[in-house]
Amino acid sequence: MRIYGDKRSGNCYKIQLLLALTGQTCKWTHMDILRGDTRSPTFLEKAPAGKIPVLELDDGRILTESNAILNFLAAGTALVPTTPFEHAKMLEWQFFEQYSHEPNIAVARFIKLYLGLPAARREEYEAKHAAGYRALEVMEQQLSRTPYLLGEQFSLADISLFAYTHVADEGGFDLAPFPAIRYWLELITTQPGFVSMG
Amino acid sequence: MRIYGDKRSGNCYKIQLLLALTGQTCKWTHMDILRGDTRSPTFLEKAPAGKIPVLELDDGRILTESNAILNFLAAGTALVPTTPFEHAKMLEWQFFEQYSHEPNIAVARFIKLYLGLPAARREEYEAKHAAGYRALEVMEQQLSRTPYLLGEQFSLADISLFAYTHVADEGGFDLAPFPAIRYWLELITTQPGFVSMG
Repeated sequence: MRIYGDKRSGNCYKIQLLLALTGQTCKWTHMDILRGDTRSPTFLEKAPAGKIPVLELDDGRILTESNAILNFLAAGTALVPTTPFEHAKMLEWQFFEQYSHEPNIAVARFIKLYLGLPAARREEYEAKHAAGYRALEVMEQQLSRTPYLLGEQFSLADISLFAYTHVADEGGFDLAPFPAIRYWLELITTQPGFVSMG
Repeated sequence: MRIYGDKRSGNCYKIQLLLALTGQTCKWTHMDILRGDTRSPTFLEKAPAGKIPVLELDDGRILTESNAILNFLAAGTALVPTTPFEHAKMLEWQFFEQYSHEPNIAVARFIKLYLGLPAARREEYEAKHAAGYRALEVMEQQLSRTPYLLGEQFSLADISLFAYTHVADEGGFDLAPFPAIRYWLELITTQPGFVSMG
């Protein structure tokens, strides 16, 4: 197996973290988005959507979308609930992450950290902040009631949302008003096998 | 079971279509987004993200995110592949739908159909068009090789992507350059139990 990814990307870090937590290994090909690696014809042939991470199996089959890759690599482990309702709740958080969290928190981080917050993108950055804080409030509401997003069980939902939440400060977000999120971030770093980003 | 939804919304139509294809029924509470139904305190207590559709089980448990609801309602049917790789490929298309397709095609449709394409949103509308056409190209590439998104098997991936693709014209998209998508749209309408939107 090989991952095409960038270790500064939260979407790629999700896969690194999952591999470490489950004791799996994988070859890694570094992709530099800013250098245009994801727009090369060879890469686009593998992954027409032009996004990382991409998982390539030894037989050449390709899987894209970070959360789909997590589901594949974690199939059959305790990180994936087995009852239909709990399984769907885990997916609910993963779809929430890709629709309401990542497009705001990861993109604000990209504008600030990668691009240096250019004036032309200030208005977009502020809109991302407003929507990103709404996503954090939804997480805070759940995490003030239960230790993990699904309740007592640490699952892929936590891995998906940890990735960009734990670097939200790099996107200019202040987590001080979110004590339950801060406690949950700490709790995740204590999981056996945990690795830091990068 | 009860769905809170709006029948003009593609995300809600996904659920209607799935219920019809699998012979299930569900109570339906109409929500008017423009009237603010999804911002009421009662609704936000059920669904803190403030989005439809929402599934409420008879015991009061709540599930949100259209694609998570599909996975719950279709669990154990032929619409969900059972091998880990095929299952992950289905999720890949569903995450693609929520990240690269819906935010462009559904939002362009909302700006045009619901809001009447106000001048203030013309620039955003055009950006949505460019990104929406890129998503359609990714689908066309797959569907020019196989009848369904996963190959020979009709799955939740097709239901998720049918919802807004089949009304893309209402968002100003021209499907003439996408013959494989147009064939696939027809093929889906021939599935036993198929129901139209609305």
